[in-house]
Amino acid sequence: MVRKKIIILGSTGSIGTNALYCVDASPNAFEVIALSTHVNVDLLLQQAARYRPKAVAVTGRPLSEPEKNDLKSLDIRFFEGEAALVDMLHDKDFDMLVNAVVGAAGFMPTLAAVDKSVDIALANKESLVIGGEIVMPKVKEKNVRLLPIDSEHSAIFQCLMGENYADIEEILLTASGGPFRTFDDFKHITLTQALHHPNWSMGKKITIDSATMMNKGLEVIEARWLFDVPVEKIRIIIHPQSIIHSMVAFHDGSIKAQLGMPDMRVPIQLAMTYPKRQPSAFPRLDWTTLKELTFAEPDFEKFPCPALAIEALKTGGTAPAVLNAANEIAVARFIREEISFDQIPALIEKVLLAHDFVSQPTVEDVLGADQWARKYIGTRV
Amino acid sequence: MVRKKIIILGSTGSIGTNALYCVDASPNAFEVIALSTHVNVDLLLQQAARYRPKAVAVTGRPLSEPEKNDLKSLDIRFFEGEAALVDMLHDKDFDMLVNAVVGAAGFMPTLAAVDKSVDIALANKESLVIGGEIVMPKVKEKNVRLLPIDSEHSAIFQCLMGENYADIEEILLTASGGPFRTFDDFKHITLTQALHHPNWSMGKKITIDSATMMNKGLEVIEARWLFDVPVEKIRIIIHPQSIIHSMVAFHDGSIKAQLGMPDMRVPIQLAMTYPKRQPSAFPRLDWTTLKELTFAEPDFEKFPCPALAIEALKTGGTAPAVLNAANEIAVARFIREEISFDQIPALIEKVLLAHDFVSQPTVEDVLGADQWARKYIGTRV
Repeated sequence: MVRKKIIILGSTGSIGTNALYCVDASPNAFEVIALSTHVNVDLLLQQAARYRPKAVAVTGRPLSEPEKNDLKSLDIRFFEGEAALVDMLHDKDFDMLVNAVVGAAGFMPTLAAVDKSVDIALANKESLVIGGEIVMPKVKEKNVRLLPIDSEHSAIFQCLMGENYADIEEILLTASGGPFRTFDDFKHITLTQALHHPNWSMGKKITIDSATMMNKGLEVIEARWLFDVPVEKIRIIIHPQSIIHSMVAFHDGSIKAQLGMPDMRVPIQLAMTYPKRQPSAFPRLDWTTLKELTFAEPDFEKFPCPALAIEALKTGGTAPAVLNAANEIAVARFIREEISFDQIPALIEKVLLAHDFVSQPTVEDVLGADQWARKYIGTRV
Repeated sequence: MVRKKIIILGSTGSIGTNALYCVDASPNAFEVIALSTHVNVDLLLQQAARYRPKAVAVTGRPLSEPEKNDLKSLDIRFFEGEAALVDMLHDKDFDMLVNAVVGAAGFMPTLAAVDKSVDIALANKESLVIGGEIVMPKVKEKNVRLLPIDSEHSAIFQCLMGENYADIEEILLTASGGPFRTFDDFKHITLTQALHHPNWSMGKKITIDSATMMNKGLEVIEARWLFDVPVEKIRIIIHPQSIIHSMVAFHDGSIKAQLGMPDMRVPIQLAMTYPKRQPSAFPRLDWTTLKELTFAEPDFEKFPCPALAIEALKTGGTAPAVLNAANEIAVARFIREEISFDQIPALIEKVLLAHDFVSQPTVEDVLGADQWARKYIGTRV
């Protein structure tokens, strides 16, 4: 069997380490060509020693001389700085990019992989949030498989296997509702409270996004591009148990759902092995203890973030890029405990109101809007 | 567009009338070639006048002279008696058989359609229950599409669209549990109680089968043949709301479910229009009122019928035919209020114990076992 040559960007994060877990589970299926981290160089070096990639990239800080020597002794090339990811992708031959970069920094690597006609297992939702309008026509042109890793989008993707996308009546995006679904005092939510997700174990940024429900807003934008459906056909449904990962309703009245344990390794592995489903030893859903699945309507007054995202998607152009950048900075400031939880949506709205949108944006327009938003929000409270 | 030429057997029953409803909904999609009834000749004549088929068949009684004259005046051929269905199928050219015959009488028509290499929308589960071992190799040989109409099997079929059947870890057959799920006094269940299904509106025989849960046992056998999985991979799960119509668990840990309103028209239409999903005006699931889906383990001590069916499937050969015939007679006697509800499984078990099984049976063996069982049980209490 020829092994699939993969590059995992963001290999030291939650998705990245689980992707490497999937490599371990199918050692004959994958050859790890390259890895990257933003700042977790220690773990990256451990991964490099174990998987012996041809190259690694570090985007968040320069490598020290001992670190460089470590890599040289293993005959591993290294790339540093902001352009490191794209430079590394251009330099290497590979069959699949696992893009698990956090935030807008994942956009250019996605574009680079599409340009090389390489399939992408996509965890970086920002690639589509900020650049869906740019990425998707190229994906079609280059005949690239864009395989979602997000549990919701993987669920939708699985529900659509063997189906005609034109038969979609509605995409039902399930949301746990996060830790504050039944909470009321949003002003005094602490960082510790916000970092405690009831069902999923994830990175910090996405955990806060779950708490504000901005994650669901970004997922609506991602779904709009991945499955080529208008925003009006995407509906958020609260499902606190996170067992049903999302659903698709078809125009004949039939609905399909994908479900299972909240375990990111299932969608990660499927994206990496598709069209094959690889047998796994991941824990199974236990029907003897699963008593009920419940559903509720989302409360967009209590959680303003999804409505902001949907509004930005409807505005189009550079609006989603501005929304995303403003959210990234707002969340970072909340994590640094500089702002309160309820200031996150308030700040994002301020930035959106101040932005002059560009429609049908170029890559430069999108990156410019992203930069503008980061600067603008940095100066506001 | 060329219209699909369909024959609907059992057109006056619950499935048959709903199949004609689907014809009405897509008048340019179908041409009704022939219809049949067991004894409901009045309704058959109304349907004949409306759909103007080329032929009709009546299996349960002779036609009267005025009835024959009615049909002659419409230029419609008629077939009567036990062999009427097969004779009519041999006589006509058509693209699809909708087999909605009740009971073992549906087996020979299924075989006849397979022999003609015609696709089958199958509501008659007995075709596979008693003859799966004979039907399925021919289905493969003749490259026939066998499209399930049972809501459970349609659900499984939909979950498997675009999937590899070899990836199935488990088929999760959902069961409402029927009207007596939380009942204890099985000796004194009345016919009226048994005919009141909590979720589905169906014919009498299948409603009693739901009450005894024999329906679920027959469905296990049907699923075993339709999806080519061993019985050990088929599991019954109680789901009282009948919203999830069944599920498939794959060997990577992912599960897919098909759900929707309990409305037989959805699976009937899909079987008739597949691979197309025809837009429909059937009522949609209302997520604002759907609060919860619950699950429980089945109680096979309280409901012995599914275990009898699974045992018969494991025995194989003519055993499922005997189980099915014994069940048909036992249910008919319960409907005539000759025996009590709890005597249904007791009688079936008696017949199974008395039968000399034939393995790798021929069509004649299966029909012989069916006849033997009917005679044997007719003399027992």
